[in-house]
Amino acid sequence: MKYTMAIIGFGGMGSWHAENVLSHIDGITVKGVYDIQKSAQDKALSHGLYVYGSLEELLEDREIDLVTIATPNDSHKDYAIALLKAGKNVICEKPVTMNVSQLEEIMETAEKSGKIFSIHQNRRWDKDFVIIKTLLDQGELGRPYFIESRVQGSRRAMYGWRGHKTNGGGMVLDWGVHLLDQLLNLIDSPVVSVDAHLFSLYSDEVDDNIKIFLRFENKVSALCEMSTNCLINHPRWHISCTDGTAVIEDWSCKGKIVKLKADSQMSWSEDIVYTEAGPTRTMAPRPEYTTNILELPEVQTDWSDYYKNIVNVMEGKAELIVKPQQALRVMKVIEKVFESEETGAGVSCHI
Amino acid sequence: MKYTMAIIGFGGMGSWHAENVLSHIDGITVKGVYDIQKSAQDKALSHGLYVYGSLEELLEDREIDLVTIATPNDSHKDYAIALLKAGKNVICEKPVTMNVSQLEEIMETAEKSGKIFSIHQNRRWDKDFVIIKTLLDQGELGRPYFIESRVQGSRRAMYGWRGHKTNGGGMVLDWGVHLLDQLLNLIDSPVVSVDAHLFSLYSDEVDDNIKIFLRFENKVSALCEMSTNCLINHPRWHISCTDGTAVIEDWSCKGKIVKLKADSQMSWSEDIVYTEAGPTRTMAPRPEYTTNILELPEVQTDWSDYYKNIVNVMEGKAELIVKPQQALRVMKVIEKVFESEETGAGVSCHI
Repeated sequence: MKYTMAIIGFGGMGSWHAENVLSHIDGITVKGVYDIQKSAQDKALSHGLYVYGSLEELLEDREIDLVTIATPNDSHKDYAIALLKAGKNVICEKPVTMNVSQLEEIMETAEKSGKIFSIHQNRRWDKDFVIIKTLLDQGELGRPYFIESRVQGSRRAMYGWRGHKTNGGGMVLDWGVHLLDQLLNLIDSPVVSVDAHLFSLYSDEVDDNIKIFLRFENKVSALCEMSTNCLINHPRWHISCTDGTAVIEDWSCKGKIVKLKADSQMSWSEDIVYTEAGPTRTMAPRPEYTTNILELPEVQTDWSDYYKNIVNVMEGKAELIVKPQQALRVMKVIEKVFESEETGAGVSCHI
Repeated sequence: MKYTMAIIGFGGMGSWHAENVLSHIDGITVKGVYDIQKSAQDKALSHGLYVYGSLEELLEDREIDLVTIATPNDSHKDYAIALLKAGKNVICEKPVTMNVSQLEEIMETAEKSGKIFSIHQNRRWDKDFVIIKTLLDQGELGRPYFIESRVQGSRRAMYGWRGHKTNGGGMVLDWGVHLLDQLLNLIDSPVVSVDAHLFSLYSDEVDDNIKIFLRFENKVSALCEMSTNCLINHPRWHISCTDGTAVIEDWSCKGKIVKLKADSQMSWSEDIVYTEAGPTRTMAPRPEYTTNILELPEVQTDWSDYYKNIVNVMEGKAELIVKPQQALRVMKVIEKVFESEETGAGVSCHI
């Protein structure tokens, strides 16, 4: 085994990292865990992992090449900086930090140390996202102009530290980070405005249902939604392009493309049509023979590719796929999200 | 017959008004039409209507109590003021004017004249809207917090004068006026921010696909969308309330309500659930036994009620349902819509 890894924080995601690396990543083994909670320490022992008695012990363990941080969000910065200074490569769970300045501090330290610092934006390998990215890269539907990305749950659930503002809880910093990271990787243009409508429906401290509207400089707009109180869902993705519309219903990636035929756009009647809600011309249904229904592109994706890239970077064979500069952009947008909610209106930016 | 009406502008909507009044409104007869186009004059004659040779002839016709204006939007103001000064009651097609100041001028003239001035916001009697209004008035789903109202067509069609900016064309001034009028009547609170993303996909001059995001002072938010290039539609209405979600699919008013049961919200497992897109707690599906599926409320609606109200107002028996003050609010929001698009970000307001 080439590389040895440790994990800080052995909750739900921490134990997922151990399992994932041990079962899917050839180049890395997992040695041990540092967690301040007794129950997490017991869980690590029962998985046959070493339990570090202190952070210092981990920092001084020369066997460790790579450490993944999976603790509550407010502790990421201090752990990351300590690890980088100790010469470790570092993977950090998202959201990378609580704000832009914390991340900039980490990035300075990483640069000085020459070590890897990356963020576990695993959802860039989600099948639904890769389908949409492939579709837009192919460009067969013309120019995209409105992108809707939604994750709608109904468990009304902001569990544990995720319900606390001081720990970096709330939906913006939970799923918001994923959906914004995906959008910024989908649309190659600066964000020029952010309008965020954040709701705290049942949480005392944090946002639990959110909508974020973005303008990009290239005239693409996007709506990004995370709900924990939605009982009738919209599709996961709804993509409006000049020559067609694409939809992915849910994580199973069922969906379709409807594309305008080039040759039959206006060969049908322009008269007023009497719908069930009265007369209309513009909103009357389009005849089916003017469109084609197409399958979504086939793609292969694997969350393991995240760690495989880390191995390749450690070996000097590849560039980092999830770069701190990208996370910095997301954090800058998130600061505008909170600014927008505070001021109660949309805000301009150039991010 | 008590009242005699004339129509200015005998295009699609003008002839609809004649037909509607003659077949559904007991108290009003339609005498004649003023239209500068020969083809419209011929159509009026073929319907057995009198054709006025000039606007002056219509203004001086003492038989006429009521005139409906159904001309391109840029001509509404001058006609309305001339008619009110001539002592006629006036109904104006929407959008009432091109901007706020034009409407204020009409309202001053109406006040001095003592005559009725109303706007044909017929879609306040659309069945889908009345169902949503009834549902929210009943309050059984708790507090609404996000309202989505969409009309999605795919005919890529901004016909005739609707394609020209100088005539008041474009989607904001066409369907936008309807959807905003409905929203302002649904939510009893000032609009405090407007963020409008307007697209001109195939029109040279006007917006043809639009999304408008509104914040109301009472913390309700809304998305209002009009598309002419959408090939896979969202529901006509999607209403998020604290205790449930309601959807109306389309103008046929198929739809449903899903409501949380009060007694079983958190009696189920809180563990991480492995969905097709990996582990999640917050976004795992909610068990069906924690919700009820309910029917949408039954309502009776009739577009004729608009003219019946006008008859009752002329008889002194009722208050105007569609008041110019309401149209003024819509026009003020629309000015913010264009301001938002121009500045490229959301704008604050108090309307």
